[in-house]
Amino acid sequence: MALYSSMDKAQLEQEYAKLREAYENYKAEGHSLNMARGKPGAEQLALSVDMLNILTPDSVFKTEDNPDVRNYGGLDGIIEAKRLFGEILEVDPENIFVGGSSSLNMMFDTIACLKEQLWKGQDNLKFLCPAPGYDRHFGVTEYFGFELITVPMTENGPDMDVVEKLVAEDASIKGIWIVPKYSNPQGITCSDETVRRFAALKPAAKDFRIMWDNAYVIHDINDTPDKLLNIFDEVKKTGNEDMVFEFCSFSKVTFPGAGVAALAASKTNLEMIKKRYTFQTIGFDKLNMLRHVQYFKDIDGVRAHMQKHRAVLQPRFEMVLSILGRELSDCGIAKWTNPNGGYFVSVDVMPGTAKRVVALCKEAGVVLTGAGATYPYGKDPEDKNIRIAPTYPPIEELEIAMNIFCVCARLAACEMLNKH
Amino acid sequence: MALYSSMDKAQLEQEYAKLREAYENYKAEGHSLNMARGKPGAEQLALSVDMLNILTPDSVFKTEDNPDVRNYGGLDGIIEAKRLFGEILEVDPENIFVGGSSSLNMMFDTIACLKEQLWKGQDNLKFLCPAPGYDRHFGVTEYFGFELITVPMTENGPDMDVVEKLVAEDASIKGIWIVPKYSNPQGITCSDETVRRFAALKPAAKDFRIMWDNAYVIHDINDTPDKLLNIFDEVKKTGNEDMVFEFCSFSKVTFPGAGVAALAASKTNLEMIKKRYTFQTIGFDKLNMLRHVQYFKDIDGVRAHMQKHRAVLQPRFEMVLSILGRELSDCGIAKWTNPNGGYFVSVDVMPGTAKRVVALCKEAGVVLTGAGATYPYGKDPEDKNIRIAPTYPPIEELEIAMNIFCVCARLAACEMLNKH
Repeated sequence: MALYSSMDKAQLEQEYAKLREAYENYKAEGHSLNMARGKPGAEQLALSVDMLNILTPDSVFKTEDNPDVRNYGGLDGIIEAKRLFGEILEVDPENIFVGGSSSLNMMFDTIACLKEQLWKGQDNLKFLCPAPGYDRHFGVTEYFGFELITVPMTENGPDMDVVEKLVAEDASIKGIWIVPKYSNPQGITCSDETVRRFAALKPAAKDFRIMWDNAYVIHDINDTPDKLLNIFDEVKKTGNEDMVFEFCSFSKVTFPGAGVAALAASKTNLEMIKKRYTFQTIGFDKLNMLRHVQYFKDIDGVRAHMQKHRAVLQPRFEMVLSILGRELSDCGIAKWTNPNGGYFVSVDVMPGTAKRVVALCKEAGVVLTGAGATYPYGKDPEDKNIRIAPTYPPIEELEIAMNIFCVCARLAACEMLNKH
Repeated sequence: MALYSSMDKAQLEQEYAKLREAYENYKAEGHSLNMARGKPGAEQLALSVDMLNILTPDSVFKTEDNPDVRNYGGLDGIIEAKRLFGEILEVDPENIFVGGSSSLNMMFDTIACLKEQLWKGQDNLKFLCPAPGYDRHFGVTEYFGFELITVPMTENGPDMDVVEKLVAEDASIKGIWIVPKYSNPQGITCSDETVRRFAALKPAAKDFRIMWDNAYVIHDINDTPDKLLNIFDEVKKTGNEDMVFEFCSFSKVTFPGAGVAALAASKTNLEMIKKRYTFQTIGFDKLNMLRHVQYFKDIDGVRAHMQKHRAVLQPRFEMVLSILGRELSDCGIAKWTNPNGGYFVSVDVMPGTAKRVVALCKEAGVVLTGAGATYPYGKDPEDKNIRIAPTYPPIEELEIAMNIFCVCARLAACEMLNKH
């Protein structure tokens, strides 16, 4: 195999024919494989089943600050759960609000709250979306009518030159989404400098908010985990404590959809969000909070549990990276990330071919995240980014799926080069 | 004891002195009692604890329409939970959306959804609030900036003459709240005629919606339960299927805040709400749905469980009614409801004294729902309605609390009469 860019027309046609044959063979095998969403696999779900019957009829339901977690009361969660999230996020339990089972829902509620309270009466608002990024983030602000503005990602996080310039110039820009550690999909962690520049932002909008979605805060997959500066430590230094809402959850620690989610925020921001939640609900599922607290006990329990996840995930990421290296390095048509944690590998195929690669994969029985999904409005300007989610399929299926993906990436590149 | 209205000044002063002494004696006893919120008591919470460890590491997590309830997927709930709610509400499971643990939260989400989608761009909207009613209902529409319009309650439900007239005249009236069975606080069930008139409404607003909060659908407390017509059967006849959102939950069946909530709606309304929920969350807690489904199995299991609640609640309601009868009948200063189900007894004390009664009770260590809370904006025009919640305190405390309440009601009446 050689660089496609150095091949002449005949060589490319030969390569195309070879790939086409491989592709047709895969198709004939009739696969049904899925690398689309960041869902834990069966081995991971099995890790937490001992939590399910940890509460029994004989459990003690009185906790330190709640007379009976089986009853109404305690809008912002039990203190024991606040402490656990406080340890994970390295913030004071006083700054934690423990919610339902979905951090996405808490982010949605937060944007809804800000729109109804802080940004009330303001129209034509905009939101910054570092991309490639998380499609569901962009979706929330799209639902609420924000204009989404793409900010490029760098290897140190969002391009802060762009962020600083935009927020300083335009008071209708009300916030920014960011997964600061092991970003979705690139697995990039904001550098210390990036975190400090976030904390020191001077937005034209005095009511600007950072949606700091620390979804993968404890989701390392190898021996060289990234370190993320604590944003709340930094905003204390710059006097920007009210600028940040931080989120995280147990969805990818215990059970997706049945974990516990929380947010961390300044006193002012907590009061704002509690005002809404007071009308919205009497309180969230404290039995599930107690279940999690009793199961993990403290941060050490959580960390030990995450080691078990790592043991499942590390071989998968290694396999994905090894196949990408073997199949796509020499031909020079793709670049990809090599993350130390998170749930994804981000692949940039040859510009203009991402949609085609996803379509070819689909035809061969491999479902990928839709091309463009990692960009606002689902539109990747260069049509090159594809998000690989290695966690869900059984590992033997992952291997086949990745081989098919690589054939499709090369096939689409040949098609593109042959056109010119 | 005689009718206060037939007493002369001297008799009233004598009565006042006697009551004042009784009151001071209660105060001296230093009570701390609570009849404020509709919270199940300890005996009721104990009824459902066997549900807590019904799921075990060996459970089967694949259900009829879900490959693994421990993972993401299934926005509107598992089919087994839809069927159970379908049986409870007597609607097709296809018309059920099973959500998180709070029906109040689902109502809040529904109003938010309607405001963002159906009523988008419309300002100065109004909402009908039958009163006395549920303060948290009124609060939701107040939060979203609706003008709240009070509709009087009759013994057959909201005064439908008023409702029909208002909705026909004013297109800015977008909906109405109602607890159709065992209303909060009066325990009134809408008569067949009332339900039919709801179904036949011809609002000027084509986007008018009824928030049918069937919170107490299965919450009978004696042998003569009320029967409520099925609103969805009726709106099918009138072609108003899109006019109704119905809600219910297991909060007062299993655990408040940790039950399962659901809504029933037409296909059009379900599509509308699903559009929002698609952005809001990946899905709700399906493990808790499975827990409930496995515990109850079907409607018969639920009904058997409700009999256990009834056994706890019936003596409490009987005691409250017996004390009210003994202490307040002869003096003719109060009226109260005698419900066949639900969570409350509604007492109308002498007009102009409700706030005073609540304050007197508080001073003697008995916390009641704030006077006025059952009216929009917390303002009872006649200052007479007080909601008694007999479920939470231990029954021996309930007895003391009710005795204190009656003394306070009579004391306040004497004060009022002595002024004139």
